[in-house]
Amino acid sequence: MTAKTNSGNFLEDFRIGQKLVHATPRTLTGGDAALYCALYGSRFALQSADSFARTLGHKQSPLDDLLVFHTVFGKTVPDISLNAVANLGYAQGNFLKPVYPGTTLSAVSEVIGLKENSNKQTGVVHVRTDGFDETGAKVLSYVRWVMVRKREASAVIVETAPPKLAQAVAADELRLPQNVSFAKFDCAASGSAHLWDDYAPGEKIDHVDGVTVEEAEHMMATRLYQNTARVHFNQFAESKGRFGKRLIYGGHVISLARALSFNGLANAVCIAAINGGRHVNPLFAGDTVFAWSEVIAKAELAGRKDCGALRLRLIATKNLPCGEFPDKGADGNYPENVILDFDIWAIMPRRS
Amino acid sequence: MTAKTNSGNFLEDFRIGQKLVHATPRTLTGGDAALYCALYGSRFALQSADSFARTLGHKQSPLDDLLVFHTVFGKTVPDISLNAVANLGYAQGNFLKPVYPGTTLSAVSEVIGLKENSNKQTGVVHVRTDGFDETGAKVLSYVRWVMVRKREASAVIVETAPPKLAQAVAADELRLPQNVSFAKFDCAASGSAHLWDDYAPGEKIDHVDGVTVEEAEHMMATRLYQNTARVHFNQFAESKGRFGKRLIYGGHVISLARALSFNGLANAVCIAAINGGRHVNPLFAGDTVFAWSEVIAKAELAGRKDCGALRLRLIATKNLPCGEFPDKGADGNYPENVILDFDIWAIMPRRS
Amino acid sequence: MTAKTNSGNFLEDFRIGQKLVHATPRTLTGGDAALYCALYGSRFALQSADSFARTLGHKQSPLDDLLVFHTVFGKTVPDISLNAVANLGYAQGNFLKPVYPGTTLSAVSEVIGLKENSNKQTGVVHVRTDGFDETGAKVLSYVRWVMVRKREASAVIVETAPPKLAQAVAADELRLPQNVSFAKFDCAASGSAHLWDDYAPGEKIDHVDGVTVEEAEHMMATRLYQNTARVHFNQFAESKGRFGKRLIYGGHVISLARALSFNGLANAVCIAAINGGRHVNPLFAGDTVFAWSEVIAKAELAGRKDCGALRLRLIATKNLPCGEFPDKGADGNYPENVILDFDIWAIMPRRS
Repeated sequence: MTAKTNSGNFLEDFRIGQKLVHATPRTLTGGDAALYCALYGSRFALQSADSFARTLGHKQSPLDDLLVFHTVFGKTVPDISLNAVANLGYAQGNFLKPVYPGTTLSAVSEVIGLKENSNKQTGVVHVRTDGFDETGAKVLSYVRWVMVRKREASAVIVETAPPKLAQAVAADELRLPQNVSFAKFDCAASGSAHLWDDYAPGEKIDHVDGVTVEEAEHMMATRLYQNTARVHFNQFAESKGRFGKRLIYGGHVISLARALSFNGLANAVCIAAINGGRHVNPLFAGDTVFAWSEVIAKAELAGRKDCGALRLRLIATKNLPCGEFPDKGADGNYPENVILDFDIWAIMPRRS
Repeated sequence: MTAKTNSGNFLEDFRIGQKLVHATPRTLTGGDAALYCALYGSRFALQSADSFARTLGHKQSPLDDLLVFHTVFGKTVPDISLNAVANLGYAQGNFLKPVYPGTTLSAVSEVIGLKENSNKQTGVVHVRTDGFDETGAKVLSYVRWVMVRKREASAVIVETAPPKLAQAVAADELRLPQNVSFAKFDCAASGSAHLWDDYAPGEKIDHVDGVTVEEAEHMMATRLYQNTARVHFNQFAESKGRFGKRLIYGGHVISLARALSFNGLANAVCIAAINGGRHVNPLFAGDTVFAWSEVIAKAELAGRKDCGALRLRLIATKNLPCGEFPDKGADGNYPENVILDFDIWAIMPRRS
Repeated sequence: MTAKTNSGNFLEDFRIGQKLVHATPRTLTGGDAALYCALYGSRFALQSADSFARTLGHKQSPLDDLLVFHTVFGKTVPDISLNAVANLGYAQGNFLKPVYPGTTLSAVSEVIGLKENSNKQTGVVHVRTDGFDETGAKVLSYVRWVMVRKREASAVIVETAPPKLAQAVAADELRLPQNVSFAKFDCAASGSAHLWDDYAPGEKIDHVDGVTVEEAEHMMATRLYQNTARVHFNQFAESKGRFGKRLIYGGHVISLARALSFNGLANAVCIAAINGGRHVNPLFAGDTVFAWSEVIAKAELAGRKDCGALRLRLIATKNLPCGEFPDKGADGNYPENVILDFDIWAIMPRRS
């Protein structure tokens, strides 16, 4: 390896307050939207049909919120997680602006937490990442934390207490465009008559369907996001690694589960916030993904009678249908077939 | 499964005259056209090159007729065939208007036939499906019939005689845009010097090439069409099913065969009608698809000297080259390697 | 096979000076750019972000040079290499104009060399292929030579001496658009601080990462280029062939290696010329591709202080990391794990 290749940052390369301007801005187009559809089969009407989006006040269909998230996330990988052992979690994620085809996304991160593990080989880095469009407007902001290797065990880490992270984004922090209204929302076109009013905290919804994942699919997706994390692509190396095979990008799981959740949550047409999320077990090609959701909370949105927010836990499993809502145990541990526990605020039209 | 998830319609849920407004309108773009090319390698010049399309009077390349068909078809699946045992056939399909990138497609179906099978477990539903653009103009209309399960064997079905279906769309029902002319058709660009004048009824054409299908490909295609039929995606469930593996969407076979037919029918640049079609055997990943065509009839088009219509049977096989034109037997039964018998009207330029 | 299907040209069908106008012009869009990204994960900032491209004077991101090359190449296959035994090499390739989404590409070739092999079964054809946009402007020109079968061993071939091919395109033949300047090149956005000034002839760069190739990926790519060479698609036939499996299109290897080369050559944002290239061993699905580069030469560009040219050898391997720079031996033969030796001029910004 020469000095010209990026070997990524190790734990001792990070310091609190450090700003990382990530490389490779990326213009997303209708081409990316089509690929996103082909990879996940998402059917939410807002992102599917320009004509539907216009009835809500959008100029055209915005890109899927998770396509925006994965693109911004992908930018951060060469600087944050090239030497990561594990992507531990997300928190305080906020979608601030709809992103339309033609937008160029870029990303900047700030290190907000740094702690060495007792083994002195690894540690945990917290970063807040902001995604911007080409005008400099912030479209997304979220916190994630990763376990990162040290280059040298002897390196001294100036630690800080991990940042205090809210359990959830507060409902009054959710951002909806002023010009968007759900008043003319067409339930025949959207695929469900169930509105915000019809969901209750504690309700559990099995999304029924399952989808098997192929190597070509998750690699195409992860490259589309320009995410270069090595564990997803290199079977030659991974055949000698921990699992003997390529690991699927966690974001691919999130998008698969979100697309499955259409069946039961068809009117949850956009994600306003990521309250938290953990990849609790790995997914591999050949596995079949299922999902279920739990309504955790409901919130009215200030000044709006046309829509409300649902706080949802989206749980994904592998090779396990979700009719019995498989979940973590009383001890907080997850069965090996549960792979994702994702906590979001979704926006849904209200009955007028 | 909660009340909020779609469990699809069963035989007893349909009634004659019932109109089903299908969900999830979809805007097709150049991204979908690129994916269609990547999935099938179609080379018909009209759909491939804007500059070529403009010489014929189009504003740009229209989308492939079958991409339009699959998209409209996909919309109908959650309402019509989620509980289907088999997709039995198509008839009286008419492409009414070129569809350009940027168009938003939606679909409405009417139930036109309903008959219970003697086993009282299943029955056959006929629907006419219309596809519309965002202005409400009808772009496509076709009949299909499916075998659907009953929810309860005891349910009473009010039957009707199956609809009378024409053997073929009449030549004077074929719709060509007024502003389109084949007078400046460039045979060097299109890839063949053979025009409408050069084909004769009874002629058989082996399309020579074969293409092997992968799981990732047919699933990406079927998701692109937002077709959610479960048998295509869920290996966990299908491993215990009839075939032990995922079944490939029949429309994928049609598009593969159509793309192969370029070699011999390069100037059959658009499909004007689907006279009929049957998926006579299943296709699975790993199989290699071949195709051949038979010219059944030729028709002049009223008021047009620049082009004519060819009625073609497009036959697809699996793992069987078509040099000997494998076909149904005298008993009307198909050998197991024949998978598709599709009857279309295609438009081809005439020698001036 | 009927007379209407294309059986391709055999050695005796070519003659020196023959011009072949290839079929199927193709309009490339943002959809193709998105697929190119999904297939290779390319991260060069110029092709990734419209906003970045505009800072250099482009109206938007041009399409990847290799996407243009593969598309033009694909057009030539039905006329030049349908009966090819092997694609032997490239030379004197010149990228003459940036190609933006919306451009329609077409191709014309001229036969410039013809020689029978001593076995009288095959021979070598040299062609110069020019790629054009829809205005008739030449965007690309290159020479390639292929080994082609004879239809009949007894056919007499009127031979010519093979054309004299330059070892490399001269630096003063490299074409850069007048309106493009690298003066405002943003190294934070591009992903590397290393500029033209920092590279020296003889320098070797291991690109570190490896990527495993799947059947679905290389077939989708090759169809995207409308390249119909049979060995890539038909497992039924290839299972009885030389390798027992489908051969991956050589251009797919070039694009994989080019995308990997970002790690070490992030600022080599465009390819100006293909000096030469050989596919020295075959690649198959399941193999993992690695790459390394050697700087062969540097050249200033007339009248430009903002950028310079680097002549690079891009070497790709399969199942062999490149930390030790695997290369041909003293005898000129390549180890079996080396699959590509590609010689290009790339453009890189200079330190002002």
